[in-house]
Amino acid sequence: MTDTEPSAPPQYPLLDLIDDPTDLRALPSSALRPLASELRAFLIDSVSRTGGHLAAGLGVVELTIALHRVFDTPHDRIVWDVGHQAYPHKILTGRRQRMGGLRQKGGISGFPKRSESVYDTFGVGHSSTSLSAALGMSIAARLKGESRQVVAVIGDGSLGAGMAFEALNHGGPLDPDLLVILNDNEMSISPPVGALSKHLASLLSGRTYTNVREGSKQALASLPELRQFVGRWEEHLKGMFMPSTLFEELGFNYIGPIDGHDLDAVIATLTNMKQMPGPRLLHLITQKGRGYAPAEQSPTRYHGVTPFDRATGRMHNKRGTGPTYTEVFGEWISDAAARDARLIGITPAMREGSGLVQFSERFPDRYFDVGIAEQHAVTLAAGMACEGLKPVVAIYSSFLQRAYDQLVHDVCLQGLDVTLAVDRAGLVGADGATHAGSFDLSFARTQPNLVIAAPADENECWQLLETAYQHPGPALVRYPRGTGPGVALKRGAETLPIGRGEIRRMGRDIALLAFGSRVPPAEEAGRILEATVANMRFVKPLDEALILELADRHRLLVTVEENAIAGGAGSAVSEVLAAHGLNVYCLHLGLPDLCLEQAGHEEQLRVCGLDAAGIVYSVRMEMEHIDLCAEAPRLDQRAA
Amino acid sequence: MTDTEPSAPPQYPLLDLIDDPTDLRALPSSALRPLASELRAFLIDSVSRTGGHLAAGLGVVELTIALHRVFDTPHDRIVWDVGHQAYPHKILTGRRQRMGGLRQKGGISGFPKRSESVYDTFGVGHSSTSLSAALGMSIAARLKGESRQVVAVIGDGSLGAGMAFEALNHGGPLDPDLLVILNDNEMSISPPVGALSKHLASLLSGRTYTNVREGSKQALASLPELRQFVGRWEEHLKGMFMPSTLFEELGFNYIGPIDGHDLDAVIATLTNMKQMPGPRLLHLITQKGRGYAPAEQSPTRYHGVTPFDRATGRMHNKRGTGPTYTEVFGEWISDAAARDARLIGITPAMREGSGLVQFSERFPDRYFDVGIAEQHAVTLAAGMACEGLKPVVAIYSSFLQRAYDQLVHDVCLQGLDVTLAVDRAGLVGADGATHAGSFDLSFARTQPNLVIAAPADENECWQLLETAYQHPGPALVRYPRGTGPGVALKRGAETLPIGRGEIRRMGRDIALLAFGSRVPPAEEAGRILEATVANMRFVKPLDEALILELADRHRLLVTVEENAIAGGAGSAVSEVLAAHGLNVYCLHLGLPDLCLEQAGHEEQLRVCGLDAAGIVYSVRMEMEHIDLCAEAPRLDQRAA
Repeated sequence: MTDTEPSAPPQYPLLDLIDDPTDLRALPSSALRPLASELRAFLIDSVSRTGGHLAAGLGVVELTIALHRVFDTPHDRIVWDVGHQAYPHKILTGRRQRMGGLRQKGGISGFPKRSESVYDTFGVGHSSTSLSAALGMSIAARLKGESRQVVAVIGDGSLGAGMAFEALNHGGPLDPDLLVILNDNEMSISPPVGALSKHLASLLSGRTYTNVREGSKQALASLPELRQFVGRWEEHLKGMFMPSTLFEELGFNYIGPIDGHDLDAVIATLTNMKQMPGPRLLHLITQKGRGYAPAEQSPTRYHGVTPFDRATGRMHNKRGTGPTYTEVFGEWISDAAARDARLIGITPAMREGSGLVQFSERFPDRYFDVGIAEQHAVTLAAGMACEGLKPVVAIYSSFLQRAYDQLVHDVCLQGLDVTLAVDRAGLVGADGATHAGSFDLSFARTQPNLVIAAPADENECWQLLETAYQHPGPALVRYPRGTGPGVALKRGAETLPIGRGEIRRMGRDIALLAFGSRVPPAEEAGRILEATVANMRFVKPLDEALILELADRHRLLVTVEENAIAGGAGSAVSEVLAAHGLNVYCLHLGLPDLCLEQAGHEEQLRVCGLDAAGIVYSVRMEMEHIDLCAEAPRLDQRAA
Repeated sequence: MTDTEPSAPPQYPLLDLIDDPTDLRALPSSALRPLASELRAFLIDSVSRTGGHLAAGLGVVELTIALHRVFDTPHDRIVWDVGHQAYPHKILTGRRQRMGGLRQKGGISGFPKRSESVYDTFGVGHSSTSLSAALGMSIAARLKGESRQVVAVIGDGSLGAGMAFEALNHGGPLDPDLLVILNDNEMSISPPVGALSKHLASLLSGRTYTNVREGSKQALASLPELRQFVGRWEEHLKGMFMPSTLFEELGFNYIGPIDGHDLDAVIATLTNMKQMPGPRLLHLITQKGRGYAPAEQSPTRYHGVTPFDRATGRMHNKRGTGPTYTEVFGEWISDAAARDARLIGITPAMREGSGLVQFSERFPDRYFDVGIAEQHAVTLAAGMACEGLKPVVAIYSSFLQRAYDQLVHDVCLQGLDVTLAVDRAGLVGADGATHAGSFDLSFARTQPNLVIAAPADENECWQLLETAYQHPGPALVRYPRGTGPGVALKRGAETLPIGRGEIRRMGRDIALLAFGSRVPPAEEAGRILEATVANMRFVKPLDEALILELADRHRLLVTVEENAIAGGAGSAVSEVLAAHGLNVYCLHLGLPDLCLEQAGHEEQLRVCGLDAAGIVYSVRMEMEHIDLCAEAPRLDQRAA
């Protein structure tokens, strides 16, 4: 594809014929490989304009065609794990024309989504859910007496997560009609981790895979005949490939590995496996970024992309000059690690996304990528903390949901010295609802012993990370996706007093109590409203003295946060007011009680009324209301 | 032990010598088997008086002695998974005299607990955390250059949980000095589930295990000589036992299976394995309830016991005549399943505890025990719901923490029709802080689309389960441990209007807004205070109209709940007041911001001020405060 002239208007004669998979199934076999080329070209062109996930989709072009060719979708169910790789699926299932609006406001989602298409059988975004969901669908088909194939497509990285193992362990012995396709690209998002990866690699290195690659055509040409020997089919195929694997121990009939880019082989194998009963696993070898040279060379870099130049692969980087919060964290952890040999960095498969590349290179002995295993990441840290190390777990807010019990039961209950660096806290823009970190303040602040901080700017992020790290107990710092207001880093080991906020400006009548990312817009709103503005800094412990002082001096307290209102920081402020028997007017501004669709991050915040203009508007409405209330005595006062 | 005369005062001459494991290590080898008999007798006697977990401890008497004999505890670390089985460990590590206060207020915990003893290396209660924690400890020892053995003891049931797999998968290739002891009793709490159990059974059924059982003495007698062949030791032992297992695929050196009640064999094997480097797994076969006939016959019944008669095994059942909430649920789900063929019951290994025995027998095709796999349980339900089934997941509140992301990302975000029956919501008495269901209202009510109900009595529990079930979207009913106020069940398919509470009594000045289990004491307090009392029934959606009406007619609103105040139902009420611009006085009564130790359930509630007397006291204090405030104008009013 890389030799396509950027100026040439792309042509997709075969793709143009396909409005849904029925059209795909009507094509002559000879058209499928050219179709794969078109699909790949369209995908590259489309993502080069919109940005999004590229490398994963390029790796499953052939598989996607084969699945919709062999299976009777949507009657048969395909469950894509994670969903990064589902763009070719979207293109072939009637959404090609909508790819231009991918991940944008009002456009289609970057992930499979049930409300978007009947072909999207299960909404995803987080990894490793496909096996449980597909098993549930398979059991349902059996109970309802429906003849239906259920296929789960899961990557090797996703397979390492605990819940995928739970599903395999539970599912195998139930003997469900379930086909698991292991899309093995030796690459989840970061490089592969764990025993499972080694196991898969050993399957590849054996003679079998070499045989398949060299002779797959011949071997598969004989399959139609083999099908006659129904009773011996399984034994034959297994004998041909591999005698026994971990998957067989779990009750799955293992077939593979085969080359996932050999379209004929994939179609022939799926056609045969479709006839087999029971739990089956097809091990498919694919290459992330396949067919686009820059992505083949740097699959991690082309995992998620901004719009880019198709000819060169160069990304049009729209971001400003300041560091992202992720980069601030990355710089801080390397700096702190240089100062303290006890510091350990842990990531659940998010080295790049969490800003740990530099740390991993400078301190390889103290860097632990545990794979997609959030639960293990947190309890591993707890075990290390028992022995006097000081682990820092870098994790996205929405992925911390996976380790909630470990945070509660293993870290906070025991008061262990674990620092959680929670990235992507709040809305996340184009990734949409599945990845929104809307709830961490609510679910984390239930925990006794836990310190929770939310920095207002880059330098405060550094200082609060240092504060959390030096605190000899569990502490969590949450910071948003993207860049901050542009405050220069002072670096060093300076800390801030725990549980103390600061007044940013003094005003009258109205006090804005802002948390984290909402401090800058609150300050702007405060100037317009002539309101007092406090940067609360800590959600737990809250600065009660500051709250009481503000409550005493103002008619209205307004909390502003990038977290769900339900149980969030504003709610915590109201708890303080209630605990102190204060009945001051309080307004909570935060994320509403709905699953917010994708849009630009700033646009999402604007829609939620969390930019400066939104804050000003809400506060003015509230003040009008309060003034009206002041004129109308309440019922109990009337009665008195 | 069963032939011990109940009247004979028990004698423990060897146990009397042991104040800590150093004394155990000083005993002659010949004393160890008699010691095991004494330890077993003491354990039965002690638990027959206090109640607690019995069968698990009886299964590891020999293992516990062997571990403290072979390893240099507490320098070497033993991490017990779950902790049900740690009573013998407590007895041998200086806490024998305190066993009489086990699980009681001010007494020792029923689980390992770091603050209780240096021998308790990691606090547990929930299952499957030991491997992650032990791996963390092992990595720490390596990084700190400390020579230290780390041993994790995990049951076959616990090993099936995802996080245990995550730890094995991550840990194996790191080559840590880590010994995993698989305590295989084919019985977690409910009967075994899943492919792993089948795998373990296949290891047992092979010739190897028979050989070991018949010839273990001879084989192990030769071990001292084998030790000379250090380089070939592993090969020898593996060749003797089993060629390859799932654990070897994960990078662990598998040894076993051996008879866990053959004390000499266990000691000899551990002594040898202590010398081996790297990750090792010893497969030990034990019997739950070993040495006490009633517990051997009914290990599930004797998993957790009330005080019982040692001679007969008959439990002194102190509970009242009414059904527990668990039993109400059990009856409801069978009744509803008979009415609706779409109903599916799912439990993560808690058939007995969740009241699903009857359902599992009447509807075996629609009953799914997924093993200790909470994550999978919830997403399996989501998959079924996609296909039009109506799954009901029965789960303890504190275990739902394990499936939080699945609740968020797979169920609520997609608005799927899954019903969650959340048992043990609130405090749980003797099981203490690890099992307290203190947070479900806080973490669950962040979720858009989710209906959350809390019944005030048994009949309302039935009706709310039916309401949640009939609601065509995600719904959660949370009910407490134990019995309710004794309201007779009407049964049937009657539902209650979603989001509507009810006024139980009318009063003046004060309105008590009570949730779930706190409705009866709130009613009692209401009578004393002449206050209005509302049974709110729903935490989400809240009955906003009722709240506004109560706010309009009373000087003080008091919320009462058996959930953390932080983010709980009271906090939700304050959010409603804030959203409507009301500044009525509000008092939140609920669980305080600390990890509450074990005690009687009623006593815990009393300590938290959540019984009727506590509510009366708190409300009177608050009213005094309000009256004082009314006399002292606030600063902003002074300024005005």
